[in-house]
Amino acid sequence: MSEEQFLAVAVEAAKSAGEIIRKGFYQTKNVEHKGQVDLVTETDKACEDLIFNHLRKHFPDHKFIGEEESAALGATADLTDDPTWIVDPLDGTTNFVHGFPFVCVSVGLTIGKIPTVGVVFNPIMNELFTAVRGKGAFLNGSPIKASSQDELVKALLVTEAGTNRDKTTVDDTTNRINRLLYKIRSIRMCGSLALNMCGVACGRLDLCYEIGFGGPWDVAAGAVILQEAGGLVFDPSGGEFDLMSRRMAGSNSLLKDKFVKELGDTN
Amino acid sequence: MSEEQFLAVAVEAAKSAGEIIRKGFYQTKNVEHKGQVDLVTETDKACEDLIFNHLRKHFPDHKFIGEEESAALGATADLTDDPTWIVDPLDGTTNFVHGFPFVCVSVGLTIGKIPTVGVVFNPIMNELFTAVRGKGAFLNGSPIKASSQDELVKALLVTEAGTNRDKTTVDDTTNRINRLLYKIRSIRMCGSLALNMCGVACGRLDLCYEIGFGGPWDVAAGAVILQEAGGLVFDPSGGEFDLMSRRMAGSNSLLKDKFVKELGDTN
Repeated sequence: MSEEQFLAVAVEAAKSAGEIIRKGFYQTKNVEHKGQVDLVTETDKACEDLIFNHLRKHFPDHKFIGEEESAALGATADLTDDPTWIVDPLDGTTNFVHGFPFVCVSVGLTIGKIPTVGVVFNPIMNELFTAVRGKGAFLNGSPIKASSQDELVKALLVTEAGTNRDKTTVDDTTNRINRLLYKIRSIRMCGSLALNMCGVACGRLDLCYEIGFGGPWDVAAGAVILQEAGGLVFDPSGGEFDLMSRRMAGSNSLLKDKFVKELGDTN
Repeated sequence: MSEEQFLAVAVEAAKSAGEIIRKGFYQTKNVEHKGQVDLVTETDKACEDLIFNHLRKHFPDHKFIGEEESAALGATADLTDDPTWIVDPLDGTTNFVHGFPFVCVSVGLTIGKIPTVGVVFNPIMNELFTAVRGKGAFLNGSPIKASSQDELVKALLVTEAGTNRDKTTVDDTTNRINRLLYKIRSIRMCGSLALNMCGVACGRLDLCYEIGFGGPWDVAAGAVILQEAGGLVFDPSGGEFDLMSRRMAGSNSLLKDKFVKELGDTN
C-alpha cells in the first residue's frame, strides 16, 4: 500500500474526529482532570476511539501509540521500525474546554522510526495540514512553505507555558522567554504544539520550541509537515530531533543556528 | 442622533477597512519600521484614512484620536467630554505582517470620556464584536457573556510581551508571568490587545492584562464590549480604569479581586 493511501485514510480519520470536536466545541463539556492544569474530555476519548478503530480496520498489522492509551498503560510504548500511527485525537484540550479556536487532531505515521505521513486538522478554523515524506506539505490542498526570514530580530516565535508547575521548570520557561525577547520580534502562545509547528510550516510563524510536552503524539505529524514545508525540526540543543524525547524546536531553513545559540542552556 | 446610529456607521467603517486588511493579509506587504519591533504598513494608513473619512462625513462635529495621527503629531490629543472616536485601524500589525490570523479593526466612541460604542472586527476569522453602553455585547449579532469561572486555577489568561525591550520592562513582564503561572491554568499571547479583550468578553479567555501598550485606540472599543458582556475593566492595581493610561486589566465579574492580588506590584 502506498504512502498516499496511508495519507488518505489518515485524512478520513482526522476529518471524522474533527466533526466530533466541532460539535463539542460549542457545547457544555464534561471535564475530568489529569493533574491541576491538564484536561481530558469525553471528546478526546471519543476521537481517539474513532481514529484508532478507523486506522486498525485499514491497517491491522500497523502499530499504534496514543496519549490516552499510554496514560492507561502508565507508559508510552517503545517506537519500533514497524509502521506506527502516533495520534493525538485532540491537541489543545485547554483551548477546547475554554472555546478558544486553536484545537486540532494530529495523526502521524512513522516508518523505520521516521515521520512519514502527517495530518493536522483544525476543525474550528477549517484548516487541514497534510504531508507525505518527499512529497511536500499542503494547507487545504495548496502547497505551503516555511518563511524566508533570515533575521532573528524580525522573527516571530511561538512556544507554550506547558502544564508542569514545579519551580525549576517554571523558572527555566520564563528565563528563556526573558532572554529570547531581546533577540526576536515577539512571542506567541496559542496552546497547541501541533498547530504551532504547522504555523511555522506555512510561514505565519518563524520559530517554535517546547520542552517537556506530553509525548510523541504532539509532534509526529507536525514534524513531517514542517520538514516537507522546507523547515527544520531539531532538538533545542541543536542536536538531532528525537521523536520520543519530549523536546523539540523548529524553524525555517535559515534561522536554526541563530535560534539554537539564543535558546541557550536547554539540557 | 442615537447611539445605535453611531454603532451602525462604525460597523460600516470597520467592515470597509476589514476588506482592505483581508486583501493585504495574503499579499506581499510593504513594511516600514517604527522602532525595532513595531510595524506600520500601507494597509494601516489606508484603513485609518478610510475610517476617519467615513466617520468625519457622518459626524463632522465629533473629535478623533488615532495611532497614526498621534504619531504624526508627536502626542496623543487630550480626551475631552465631546463625542470622540478612538480608532486603531489595524490592531495586530505584527500578526498582519506575518500572516497570523489575529488582526482586527478597533473603533470606539467615548461620550463624556466614557467608552460608549465599540466595534472590533477580525476580517480574517470574520468575527464582528459590537457593543453600545447599556445595550449588551454581541459577536456577529448574537449576545455574548464573559465566563462564570470563579477559580483562578482554572482561568485562562491572555497578555502580550509588548514591544518595549528595555531591561526593566522585560524583567517586569517575565517576572509577572512567572508569578502568575503558579496561580492560573495557562497563558496565551496572541498579538492583539483589542481581540484579547473580546476573547474575555465572549468567555474564551477569563483574564487579560497589558501594561505600556500603544494608546487608547487599543482599548477604547474593547472596554465597552467587555463591560457590556458582563466583564470588568480596571487598572492592573485594582483601581479605576483610565483609558489614557496605557494600563489595563480585564476579567469576568468573579475573578477581579483574586486576579489583582496575584498581579502584584504593577505600579
